[in-house]
Amino acid sequence: MIILGIDPGYAILGYGVIDAEKGKIKVIDYGVIETSANQSFPKRLDRLYNGVNELISLYSPAQVAFEELFFSKNVTTALYVGAGRGVAMLCAEQAKLPLYEYTPMQIKLAVTGNGRADKRQMQTMVKMIIGLKDIPKPDDAADALGVAICHAHTLRCASNDFLIK
Amino acid sequence: MIILGIDPGYAILGYGVIDAEKGKIKVIDYGVIETSANQSFPKRLDRLYNGVNELISLYSPAQVAFEELFFSKNVTTALYVGAGRGVAMLCAEQAKLPLYEYTPMQIKLAVTGNGRADKRQMQTMVKMIIGLKDIPKPDDAADALGVAICHAHTLRCASNDFLIK
Repeated sequence: MIILGIDPGYAILGYGVIDAEKGKIKVIDYGVIETSANQSFPKRLDRLYNGVNELISLYSPAQVAFEELFFSKNVTTALYVGAGRGVAMLCAEQAKLPLYEYTPMQIKLAVTGNGRADKRQMQTMVKMIIGLKDIPKPDDAADALGVAICHAHTLRCASNDFLIK
Repeated sequence: MIILGIDPGYAILGYGVIDAEKGKIKVIDYGVIETSANQSFPKRLDRLYNGVNELISLYSPAQVAFEELFFSKNVTTALYVGAGRGVAMLCAEQAKLPLYEYTPMQIKLAVTGNGRADKRQMQTMVKMIIGLKDIPKPDDAADALGVAICHAHTLRCASNDFLIK
């Protein structure tokens, strides 16, 4: 089953596409959609919308997994980041894909076995699990692969707990 | 010129459509798009997307004016409300409409002449300006008419100051 993992944002959105079958995981693609600070905010949202839709039509994922946004920064930042997350969710919803969401701690636990793993440990495990030579770059792409792997592992247990309500 | 005013949100989004010509303002429509708390968040975003697109195709506004979200509530609320605002902006952007945004104080000033007018004063002025018998209901629709009127007034001066960057 093809899973699209997304690390949401509005300036940079990480994605990771994997194929998970009977506990084996193959990487299909990963990278980021970047939006230019020189463009208006609505234009940046349109770029995200088109970019995520392109990924969905290119790879036909069966399910989409988001990393939950968790930050204590100011409310204005949350308004903007929330819009990027919302637009990515809109794309998945319009493609009628089930959407799941995991906290950073759940992702770390599923990928490394340790909910408090640091960034380097996470990236090293992501690299090993999907059999890459190097750690995937940039960080947002590695994070998106992490949430896709987390979802693949959780699928084998009780993934409906993580369906977005 | 037809102006679509929007009071953004994700549970309830107010809209007001006016025709402003040479200082005269006629009301065309106003109301709210509501999304059900029983639906998933991505489904609610999809409802907003379809609803705002329907308004745009029904009334063919030339410009869209948003009331700026300003609140000091928690970051989680901002994530959700920001998504509703983002989806409405995405619709306007995809229709290639110029988007403007005004703070509540700018709207009060433009509509009543007093940046600190209370809700009742605002609603009474909105009612008078567009020649309604009663105060428009619900509040979100009245607010959306307020931002549309504010934009109509500002157009006669220097509206580009309020283009969304």
